[in-house]
Amino acid sequence: MINLNLKNIAPSYIREILSVATHNDMISFAGGLPDPNSFPLELMKESFQELSQLPEFFQYNSTRGLEGLIESIGKRFDIKKDRSLIITNGSQQGLDLIARAFIAPGDQVLVEAPSYLGALQVFKLAGAQLKTIPILDNGPDLDALKNCFERQKIKFFYVIPDYQNPTGYCYPLVLRKAIAQLCRQYGVMIIEDSPYRELGFKGEKLALISDFFPEGSIVLHSFSKIVSPGLRIGCVESTSKIVNSLIKLKQISDLHSNIPSQFILQKLIEHRGFELHIQQVRQNYYDKYRLLVGELEKELANEISFKPVQGGMFIWLSFRDPEINTMEFAKKALTKKLAVVPGSVFYLNGSNNQNSLRLNFSHPTLANIKKGVHHFAQTVRIYSKVN
Amino acid sequence: MINLNLKNIAPSYIREILSVATHNDMISFAGGLPDPNSFPLELMKESFQELSQLPEFFQYNSTRGLEGLIESIGKRFDIKKDRSLIITNGSQQGLDLIARAFIAPGDQVLVEAPSYLGALQVFKLAGAQLKTIPILDNGPDLDALKNCFERQKIKFFYVIPDYQNPTGYCYPLVLRKAIAQLCRQYGVMIIEDSPYRELGFKGEKLALISDFFPEGSIVLHSFSKIVSPGLRIGCVESTSKIVNSLIKLKQISDLHSNIPSQFILQKLIEHRGFELHIQQVRQNYYDKYRLLVGELEKELANEISFKPVQGGMFIWLSFRDPEINTMEFAKKALTKKLAVVPGSVFYLNGSNNQNSLRLNFSHPTLANIKKGVHHFAQTVRIYSKVN
Repeated sequence: MINLNLKNIAPSYIREILSVATHNDMISFAGGLPDPNSFPLELMKESFQELSQLPEFFQYNSTRGLEGLIESIGKRFDIKKDRSLIITNGSQQGLDLIARAFIAPGDQVLVEAPSYLGALQVFKLAGAQLKTIPILDNGPDLDALKNCFERQKIKFFYVIPDYQNPTGYCYPLVLRKAIAQLCRQYGVMIIEDSPYRELGFKGEKLALISDFFPEGSIVLHSFSKIVSPGLRIGCVESTSKIVNSLIKLKQISDLHSNIPSQFILQKLIEHRGFELHIQQVRQNYYDKYRLLVGELEKELANEISFKPVQGGMFIWLSFRDPEINTMEFAKKALTKKLAVVPGSVFYLNGSNNQNSLRLNFSHPTLANIKKGVHHFAQTVRIYSKVN
Repeated sequence: MINLNLKNIAPSYIREILSVATHNDMISFAGGLPDPNSFPLELMKESFQELSQLPEFFQYNSTRGLEGLIESIGKRFDIKKDRSLIITNGSQQGLDLIARAFIAPGDQVLVEAPSYLGALQVFKLAGAQLKTIPILDNGPDLDALKNCFERQKIKFFYVIPDYQNPTGYCYPLVLRKAIAQLCRQYGVMIIEDSPYRELGFKGEKLALISDFFPEGSIVLHSFSKIVSPGLRIGCVESTSKIVNSLIKLKQISDLHSNIPSQFILQKLIEHRGFELHIQQVRQNYYDKYRLLVGELEKELANEISFKPVQGGMFIWLSFRDPEINTMEFAKKALTKKLAVVPGSVFYLNGSNNQNSLRLNFSHPTLANIKKGVHHFAQTVRIYSKVN
């Protein structure tokens, strides 16, 4: 009796590996978790205390989201005046609302290869026909993109330009402009997912792809990476017409998002310590990143290659030996108490790119990064011997 | 480009009237809001303070819900050992997940007439073909139910047995058993929505319909009426097979519900003051109910009739004069700064029961109940004169 699209979605390999990876003695480069030490609890403390005097934040409230929060987000994240916002339960719900409101079964949605698994599942659930565009060293392959738009009626292009998941790549400005231009030319709507946007190591931010095609784009913002994922607060930015459809759908889906957390987030964004907090997160992740790549180069310079990143939470690593199958490698690593995610899980059919891996550096401690790379190197030696 | 089912759902009259009803000088019997003075903020105060020392509740967490919360709910609400639970963003999301997981376009879903509008919208969005069963003085008409099950392949029966919305009726035990028996006999799954279950004025609770057909039923529990709707925490109870499908869907939809609020709720349920809190809510609503019916009888004994209720938040009132159209009446009442909801909005086609009204007594203050009934009576006089 279960919905067939739902039935046909395979359980997430990442969720499964994460359930193993939470064991205490396991070192994990697998998930996409922020560092729990980075949660700005000290900055939120006062608001939590205030809350118990504010019954109005425990009542039913607006589906669009808390007015004060929307205003604060608008200011802090430079949302243009003619754009509308809706608060969602993390940007995952934003994706789901977009798919449910605008994707009909059979609609063609173009996604990057590799891409964020959670988005692919949302699109599959909506019955979309998924097409893929390969990511080159700088981002999506423009020639292939043009070709694809020419040959097929693509409705949406789902793209993660800032420190992409899983590759960590940040697309250059000229590529962003070109993508927007092609989408405009071929009438393709853009879903621009940008959860890592604030995580540039130096705080640098390029223009969004959507800035060059605002009337044809929907942007997903997240607070999971710079504040806390447990709060489940994200937001979707688009034209008022599109946002109004999402509001109508969200009202039916769950009335509105958690109000006390919206209040806490509003106060945090308005807090004079918020900018320093984000800088500290960036510095923390930069330190971890440098240690990770330093250790990898020390231990495995001849075995692996990867492109340096300028921010985010991940690096995308390939073995020089094309015979190494990272799905097998990941299983072997588990026996060394190390969790990594094989690259193939980020591809639609799971079969491409058998010798790549995604490594997360935001969650493990510095000590565990060092130890983890050591286990990683040991797994490489074992793997090479056995196979 | 918008989803057609979504496009065809009319905006909620209640939401619209509520946006007017929040004006300060307006007295509202319209919404289904709990009394904000009933939110147990004092009992939650300590947990809010604790939270800022507990980073683990700000990280990603399990889709099913916080383990401790699920355990506490199981104990406090006597969930049987062989039942599974999933935490949702209010029971509204529970309804939406059920519909998305198990209702295919064209599936027949039976709903009560009148019923909760938010559920009807969820089923419509899923593409269900809705059928209705009339509510008599005690609950659904059993003969009509049998007839309906015989003639049509009904997949789900959506029913609100405890202080039903909008009628306030609590279905007697014998009727609950009979409904379960018929559903079992005809292979109809039950969706039992019970947000008002804890609000019996005397704290009394009858067995759930689902107790007599557990393998064929899904129960929705809510904390919006006894704790706080702003937290958006509800839960769905069913067989582990059904709950596992809902978990898979929820993971794709929004990963999981807000964690700090799940922690707050868990601590509240475990608090030694929780039982007294619920008793106080019941007493508060009983006092308001008695004042409302007392004033109505004093001012309008000859013009109206209604069945007394034993709990919940609403009474369902009919004018003795069948010529009074409550949609018109509600508009006139607004000019008297009084908001009420006409009965027709709780019916599928909107055309039945032109002379009934739902009145909420949980949200207005005692003083406003008195004043509101006075405005109500004035509106009746004006209406009768003009028409």
